Amino acid sequence: MPTTAKPAPFTVDDYAARMARAATAAAEAGLAGVLVALGPDLAWLTGYQPTAVTERLTLLVLSPDGPPTLIVPTLERPDAEAAAGAGAVTIRDWTDGSDPYAAAGALLRADGRYGISDSTWAMHLLGLQRNRPGTAYLSLTDCLPMLRAVKDADELERLAAAGAAADAAYEEILKVRFAGRRETDVAADLAGLLRRFGHEQVDFTVVGSGPNGANPHHEAGERVIEAGDAVVLDFGGLLSGYGSDTTRTVTVGEPDPEVRKVHGIVREAQQAAFEAVRPGVPCQEIDRVARRVITDAGYGEFFIHRTGHGIGVTTHEPPYLVEGEPAPLVPGMCFSIEPGIYLPGRFGVRIEDIVTVTAEGGRRLNTTSHDLGLVS
Amino acid sequence: MPTTAKPAPFTVDDYAARMARAATAAAEAGLAGVLVALGPDLAWLTGYQPTAVTERLTLLVLSPDGPPTLIVPTLERPDAEAAAGAGAVTIRDWTDGSDPYAAAGALLRADGRYGISDSTWAMHLLGLQRNRPGTAYLSLTDCLPMLRAVKDADELERLAAAGAAADAAYEEILKVRFAGRRETDVAADLAGLLRRFGHEQVDFTVVGSGPNGANPHHEAGERVIEAGDAVVLDFGGLLSGYGSDTTRTVTVGEPDPEVRKVHGIVREAQQAAFEAVRPGVPCQEIDRVARRVITDAGYGEFFIHRTGHGIGVTTHEPPYLVEGEPAPLVPGMCFSIEPGIYLPGRFGVRIEDIVTVTAEGGRRLNTTSHDLGLVS
Repeated sequence: MPTTAKPAPFTVDDYAARMARAATAAAEAGLAGVLVALGPDLAWLTGYQPTAVTERLTLLVLSPDGPPTLIVPTLERPDAEAAAGAGAVTIRDWTDGSDPYAAAGALLRADGRYGISDSTWAMHLLGLQRNRPGTAYLSLTDCLPMLRAVKDADELERLAAAGAAADAAYEEILKVRFAGRRETDVAADLAGLLRRFGHEQVDFTVVGSGPNGANPHHEAGERVIEAGDAVVLDFGGLLSGYGSDTTRTVTVGEPDPEVRKVHGIVREAQQAAFEAVRPGVPCQEIDRVARRVITDAGYGEFFIHRTGHGIGVTTHEPPYLVEGEPAPLVPGMCFSIEPGIYLPGRFGVRIEDIVTVTAEGGRRLNTTSHDLGLVS
Repeated sequence: MPTTAKPAPFTVDDYAARMARAATAAAEAGLAGVLVALGPDLAWLTGYQPTAVTERLTLLVLSPDGPPTLIVPTLERPDAEAAAGAGAVTIRDWTDGSDPYAAAGALLRADGRYGISDSTWAMHLLGLQRNRPGTAYLSLTDCLPMLRAVKDADELERLAAAGAAADAAYEEILKVRFAGRRETDVAADLAGLLRRFGHEQVDFTVVGSGPNGANPHHEAGERVIEAGDAVVLDFGGLLSGYGSDTTRTVTVGEPDPEVRKVHGIVREAQQAAFEAVRPGVPCQEIDRVARRVITDAGYGEFFIHRTGHGIGVTTHEPPYLVEGEPAPLVPGMCFSIEPGIYLPGRFGVRIEDIVTVTAEGGRRLNTTSHDLGLVS
């Protein structure tokens, strides 16, 4: 059972420190500043995260030579002022019928090069480019990919709690009936368990049974699970604002010998990749290690995705463990290690843990057994 | 009680017609084509709407001189192929570790000017701009604002069903207890009612009691509702993929005389704006009509937002009823008319109906009483 004690909320000083860190990182990268629209980066920097992302521009402007300024629609100003980090930003509002890009553009250097949050709407970026034609932009993932990648102790505590809660959900789902029920039924059970163990948000509950397991992004469908099926279970969400994401593969009754064989290969790949984690190792090397095990076993063409992704206030973020990513691992980074093998029309197997980098190597934030789970 | 019969799903021919319409509209606007990332525009054009929008590029390329092409991540290809409109598009995939912007850029004219869906991630737009430096982009709201604005009969049927379901939820919420309960409790009741009457998704359940009602974007909080409070109820979601959005103001027991007075002004403004609806009238004129009533009554400074927004597969879309929008109303357009008055620290009043334009004038898709609702 994971602890249900909630960590202390982040304070205005925590948010101020993050904003200062971002401004400093921008300066070091030769940027005039960082622009952040509604989304997880803004939540991380200011604690401000309204329920809906709408067409009205909200934009945080961070620059090394001025205080943080948040542009908000007038009618959302009270919500922004209530955010935990609001005390560390100057809030300016714009009113329906006025030009929000003029309001934001006035804060930009005419020839400035800015980092901009990945999920900022294209409509907003185009508005800024139009208002300030001399400016240039890079996505945060391109210019400051590691801004949120190294987690501090408070963040690690949250990620560990989210992982423990997901593990508790896995232990419980092993006890429910699979055979004769639809994937969506088991998915609903998983969602309920994630909430029961403390998640405030469920982001995905993949239940890929039999041939559906061979589609790594299959969510859960109307297929009725049968005796003998291999079932990929991949689930997660947010707990205290930080993500969980774990995958185990189970079989309904005794596994087919090839499922057992493939599972053994995936397990070996996951373990080898985990053991390769240590500070200084390039991200792509973790991918190569996992891929080599699977390729050497003759299944390389069936491992059709990267080995992992960072996790924090979003469930996909840098660092990406993918060929072509030479960035070195740094203590405090957190990411998934999730090799898989997908045999079209037959079944899939994936094993996924969240792992954090320590001075000595990797530490798993998911610790349930890697054995092929047995369900009824 | 709204009907619970679900409309027939849109067919591959429906989606093909929409894509053809978009390509034609692009050509007429002097564009080389239209680019659409994951989100409501893609759902409208192709029926493809995966649960999660992630960092991996999915992009529909529509151009007047070629067939529709959808670029997807390899591991999401099976989901894309299962979409209702998939038969009308050519699907091409890209694999982790390769450059998705090169794959998409290869489909673009080197000097083409493209419309791009509003909520496309800035990261993706920047990737395209980098890969094809000679291209130019405009948001769909800027270059083809009315692409989805005029609804056909099947869409109107869905919007009417969503409105009827929201109305049924309002009639029921009048029967629940307000006094002594938290706003979040009433909001949960509203969410349950929207689902009970057929919504597959609840997007917002604003319960703004007493002074919280004066913050138009307040959602629902821990405040305990008291006897005498005015309470703004603004709620909606999706039913059969189309949006509902309605607002009524109620009082807990007998209203304060100023609440009654302000409510009467808002009601008059809403009615006047509704009566001004007819083909050819500029969008901004509807805003002016509503604003004039409120200004003439001495409350102009407290009506702090535009009068309305279009609605369809999203709850905010063109046409916007706002000063500066000269576009004429066209039969089949659907939008909210939602004037309000917000007295800081005291209370707020808003009345909102979805209205569609007919040859003769406006037709309301929300038909519950505009009287000040009375709750206990």
